[in-house]
Amino acid sequence: MSEPINDHIILGIDPGTNIMGYGVLNIIDHKPHLVAMGVIDLRKFSNHYLKLRQIYQRVQSVIDSYLPDELAIEAPFFGKNVQSMLKLGRAQGVAIAAALSRDLPITEYAPLKIKMAITGSGEASKEQVAGMLQHMLHIPQEDMPHFMDATDALGAAYCHYLQKGHPVTSNGSKSWKDFIIKHPDRVNK
Amino acid sequence: MSEPINDHIILGIDPGTNIMGYGVLNIIDHKPHLVAMGVIDLRKFSNHYLKLRQIYQRVQSVIDSYLPDELAIEAPFFGKNVQSMLKLGRAQGVAIAAALSRDLPITEYAPLKIKMAITGSGEASKEQVAGMLQHMLHIPQEDMPHFMDATDALGAAYCHYLQKGHPVTSNGSKSWKDFIIKHPDRVNK
Repeated sequence: MSEPINDHIILGIDPGTNIMGYGVLNIIDHKPHLVAMGVIDLRKFSNHYLKLRQIYQRVQSVIDSYLPDELAIEAPFFGKNVQSMLKLGRAQGVAIAAALSRDLPITEYAPLKIKMAITGSGEASKEQVAGMLQHMLHIPQEDMPHFMDATDALGAAYCHYLQKGHPVTSNGSKSWKDFIIKHPDRVNK
Repeated sequence: MSEPINDHIILGIDPGTNIMGYGVLNIIDHKPHLVAMGVIDLRKFSNHYLKLRQIYQRVQSVIDSYLPDELAIEAPFFGKNVQSMLKLGRAQGVAIAAALSRDLPITEYAPLKIKMAITGSGEASKEQVAGMLQHMLHIPQEDMPHFMDATDALGAAYCHYLQKGHPVTSNGSKSWKDFIIKHPDRVNK
């Protein structure tokens, strides 16, 4: 009947208008464990409203499957032009509404903040973010996703976990600081 | 037990980040009747997510109150800057998600299109749109709203009604063409 008191599930989402990534972390005794990650492929929907409907339903479905306690979203604040930002805003808004419909608290992180939190550098590539997450969460190579949108989303969840104040575990291992010391070649200068 | 076969309710929404307007029309025997209009005032919510939550819940509540068959939204495609467009996109996305959650078909209209459809001019002011709607829907002066966001939203619903192909009633009266002929001074040149 009893669960660990620190059992806490964080859903990370990287909302895009073509591919939307998601990643789910379970924090047990202050340590993050990968539960799931994947993408919602929106490219097959030519109609804008069908895309938005798909985002709404699939994000609700991911929430209902993994029952997260919180949502962390990657949210860029700047874009190329007003048209693309309006579309991105709509995609974000629909994903946010799906979380609101399930009463999830939402925190958003700028891409720079996520890169900084995970790799220690705001200039890290998506591949470097993915590599760091793979290491820290012990993800087998065959389980790494084809789309970086999934690892970006997982990065948002991981960033939220770090922000909540558990970056270093009691034995000091498995933290990114530890990883940086051991693998200086993997860190973006 | 029987209802008129043309009984059809259109909800119009003008999604904004500070004030969101709504207007409800019932189309009975091809003629539009005002059911309700009003605004959702978001200025009291300082937190961005509280605003979005309020939009989501209030739009759902309006839908559940008036049971519209369709949603028409006023949707500008251009704005001052990417930041404001992202915020507007989010507000639109959340309102759209509320409609998706109730399985409403959605049609969007650019502000220019709504002005053109209602006043015959794309340069009409908000006051002129409001005046034309007041005339066509026989709205008593005391029932006219303080905020133009409400009449803008009603304009989106009215534009959708016109688009669906019932601009002129069988006796030729109450159409905007009729109004323009009778009141040339009310028309923007």
